[in-house]
Amino acid sequence: MSLFQITVSELAERFGLVCHGDGSHVVDGVGTLAGAGPSQLSFLSNSKYASQLASTRAGVVVMREENVAESPVLALVARDPYVAYAKIAALFERLPASPQGIHPTAVVAPTARVAPTASIGPGCVIEDGAVVEDGAILGPHCIVGPECTVGAQCRLVARVTLVIRVTLGQRVLVHPGAVIGSDGFGLAFDRDHWIKLPQLGGVRIGDDCEIGANTTIDRGALDDTVLEEDVRLDNQIQIAHNVYIGAHTALAGCAAVAGSAKIGRYCMIGGNAGVLGHLELADRVTITAKSLVTHSIREPGEYSSGVPLQENRLWRRNAARFKHLDEYVRRLSALEKDSNNE
Amino acid sequence: MSLFQITVSELAERFGLVCHGDGSHVVDGVGTLAGAGPSQLSFLSNSKYASQLASTRAGVVVMREENVAESPVLALVARDPYVAYAKIAALFERLPASPQGIHPTAVVAPTARVAPTASIGPGCVIEDGAVVEDGAILGPHCIVGPECTVGAQCRLVARVTLVIRVTLGQRVLVHPGAVIGSDGFGLAFDRDHWIKLPQLGGVRIGDDCEIGANTTIDRGALDDTVLEEDVRLDNQIQIAHNVYIGAHTALAGCAAVAGSAKIGRYCMIGGNAGVLGHLELADRVTITAKSLVTHSIREPGEYSSGVPLQENRLWRRNAARFKHLDEYVRRLSALEKDSNNE
Amino acid sequence: MSLFQITVSELAERFGLVCHGDGSHVVDGVGTLAGAGPSQLSFLSNSKYASQLASTRAGVVVMREENVAESPVLALVARDPYVAYAKIAALFERLPASPQGIHPTAVVAPTARVAPTASIGPGCVIEDGAVVEDGAILGPHCIVGPECTVGAQCRLVARVTLVIRVTLGQRVLVHPGAVIGSDGFGLAFDRDHWIKLPQLGGVRIGDDCEIGANTTIDRGALDDTVLEEDVRLDNQIQIAHNVYIGAHTALAGCAAVAGSAKIGRYCMIGGNAGVLGHLELADRVTITAKSLVTHSIREPGEYSSGVPLQENRLWRRNAARFKHLDEYVRRLSALEKDSNNE
Repeated sequence: MSLFQITVSELAERFGLVCHGDGSHVVDGVGTLAGAGPSQLSFLSNSKYASQLASTRAGVVVMREENVAESPVLALVARDPYVAYAKIAALFERLPASPQGIHPTAVVAPTARVAPTASIGPGCVIEDGAVVEDGAILGPHCIVGPECTVGAQCRLVARVTLVIRVTLGQRVLVHPGAVIGSDGFGLAFDRDHWIKLPQLGGVRIGDDCEIGANTTIDRGALDDTVLEEDVRLDNQIQIAHNVYIGAHTALAGCAAVAGSAKIGRYCMIGGNAGVLGHLELADRVTITAKSLVTHSIREPGEYSSGVPLQENRLWRRNAARFKHLDEYVRRLSALEKDSNNE
Repeated sequence: MSLFQITVSELAERFGLVCHGDGSHVVDGVGTLAGAGPSQLSFLSNSKYASQLASTRAGVVVMREENVAESPVLALVARDPYVAYAKIAALFERLPASPQGIHPTAVVAPTARVAPTASIGPGCVIEDGAVVEDGAILGPHCIVGPECTVGAQCRLVARVTLVIRVTLGQRVLVHPGAVIGSDGFGLAFDRDHWIKLPQLGGVRIGDDCEIGANTTIDRGALDDTVLEEDVRLDNQIQIAHNVYIGAHTALAGCAAVAGSAKIGRYCMIGGNAGVLGHLELADRVTITAKSLVTHSIREPGEYSSGVPLQENRLWRRNAARFKHLDEYVRRLSALEKDSNNE
Repeated sequence: MSLFQITVSELAERFGLVCHGDGSHVVDGVGTLAGAGPSQLSFLSNSKYASQLASTRAGVVVMREENVAESPVLALVARDPYVAYAKIAALFERLPASPQGIHPTAVVAPTARVAPTASIGPGCVIEDGAVVEDGAILGPHCIVGPECTVGAQCRLVARVTLVIRVTLGQRVLVHPGAVIGSDGFGLAFDRDHWIKLPQLGGVRIGDDCEIGANTTIDRGALDDTVLEEDVRLDNQIQIAHNVYIGAHTALAGCAAVAGSAKIGRYCMIGGNAGVLGHLELADRVTITAKSLVTHSIREPGEYSSGVPLQENRLWRRNAARFKHLDEYVRRLSALEKDSNNE
């Protein structure tokens, strides 16, 4: 598969790992403990998979010191095997070639500025006043709207739309179908119909952010919608206008954040979780999957809502009771009162 | 920023507002109470922000009569400051230029009909029998499929797909990534595999509707999927086949409506709320965020489902109890019976 | 409308149905019981609609034996009228013409291989090493990335993106905006920032699958993400990396499956339902709409979570009580103990 080869010793040196065994062994790829062959490297991070170590055919396994004794194969010891593996695996990734320059089918406005080292793919449209900086790669069919900036070394994989007044920092990675800078959902109700509020702000995305496939990030009504650096958004996430997300926060697939909410740094928002508008979340808040945040959160920690999955027949009975929970509690209190009076 | 300038007196006259102070003051933009400068207009609608009025540097603020006395700056009095602000702010919006005519990279079928005053952007594809009416603007990469009509003054911002048999009324605004007229999810189970039901209907969208980024609206199986006029859909909404949505209803981001549901006029459906198939909702029904509508609603009002967010440690205990709620209620009833028998 | 005409006798013969009445009657389309006219065929499957039979103007109705006596019109008797109708209706579907060959505005890499019988629409981009097999139809603006294969007779309606290492079997139908093969959301936390795990696997989609509009299916981290044959995904579904979905399973709109979950065959996942990562679902499991699957399911059956919708005023009271449910149960147990001790 991969044309890249490296010895285990070189890996140890490059990433500060300790090698137990023959460091001259050559690897040319990575794989799972169950699937890797003798020329491939694997890793053991989650102790749940420790039993797979005994039978692995991998050439070398990145692991913690404590697992070395049981390893039947060459071991590379890391404090955090998952992080070490991530760095090593990146060596074996082959990205499609992206030739510098502008594809002949792309349409670039005369007032746009594209760095000569950037790669603009087939069918891209770069509009008035847009800027694409050094080494940025735009795959097929990307649209960079008016007054948008794509920072150095960004990669817009394919079919990304930056609508208007969007600024991407450096090394931002955006996946296909993402729409950044679309109109915020701002409406005023005028007696019997809706009036649209013009969305005059923009979007600012910090360095090293990642934006998932078909994710949408609306531009601000007056001020900007902001993602600080290293924010990681999975697929199909919805970020409404004037949301502010602190650095290093990650949102899992299908999460949604309503208008003007402010999320702290190092937060983790689970899949399909929601945050209502205008709320504030402190740093290091974790929200579990499908929970709805209905009030601001001042303390770090893990928060949840929802009820557990059950067989439908049982669930129906419990759910029906929920509709009268307040009444039951009143009846309980009445009984307690009776009991105390006896 | 903006090149448009106007005096406060002219604004008062144009929008029927009362000016308190020097009407000859000129404004050239809008901003928040906290951010606007002396040449900008701001507004005070939500009394929550009244404290910001004292320190605003805005040139003029749109407000209610009751706030004029405390205003340190020029005041424009409106019955509904938010509506008045929306109308004023629209004056300062600068939309990208959209030259009339068909971009040379667009592909237009010979049987399609495009009004000479329409603007067809780079890479657009207009298919057989499609119609684009007067003054409609199609940004880059829009696809107008067979038998689709884009009404006068519509704006398809970019990368909008109208699949087949879709009719947009006048002034419909559609954001990037929206897919309208895709196959409804109609399947019949034939012993051991699925058979697809052809989706032979279309989609009809009324005047002044707005369709958010990456929203999907499927076409009907036999009859059409219908949105009446002034329906407002935020991003990533899913409207299944044969849904019918009444005029002036608004759905927030990530809401979903299952097949053949009928939603009334002036409804408000919260973010990530869901409506099951074949249900009917009366006019003026509000559904709060993330609620699931499992039965038809005959009366206007606000409806909800879900449980509150809590610290995970506490939530776990309560959620575990939910699985036996029916049993607890039976035990409560038994105690009450005992108590009454004593 | 349709140019296709057929007699009722021919339909009976072709699909093994029994005709009650004049088989020489000609039909040229299909419609609902309420809407079909004398030249159209309709069906009665759900007994809920049986009352509409008396007043139908349809030329012929597909129904069960038991309904023939009450039918005022020609009847075609089927064991499963819905399945029979699905097969008949397909005869009347007119798909847009898709000329064989490559549209002049498409961009095809020299190392890509496109079958001469395939149809490649305007603006398509076929990248290095991609393969498009016999009779496949790619509508406008599809992107087939490096090392992707589109099987024979597939149809990519429009604006479909296959990112990298995606293999579609035969007759796969993919709707606009779908993104298949994007990066899985794999991150390792390195002290104070995120490191991305390269996503080195691919996606394999079996024969006869259907993928809805704006649905996303990520490629695997090491192994592939897999959909077996005849899997049916509605719109806006999110399938994370290394998910495995068994044959004939259907997911309704906005459902989401987290990384490495394994779903059995013949499962039904309701709208906006979620499955957490690394879980396993047995064959023939049904999950109702908006439920969250938080543990593996070993037995076939129907499973649910959530609480019922109520008027907001009532719901608030019950929801507030949920926060103390554990305490109430403890108080109930204490009362029971007291009661037993008396």
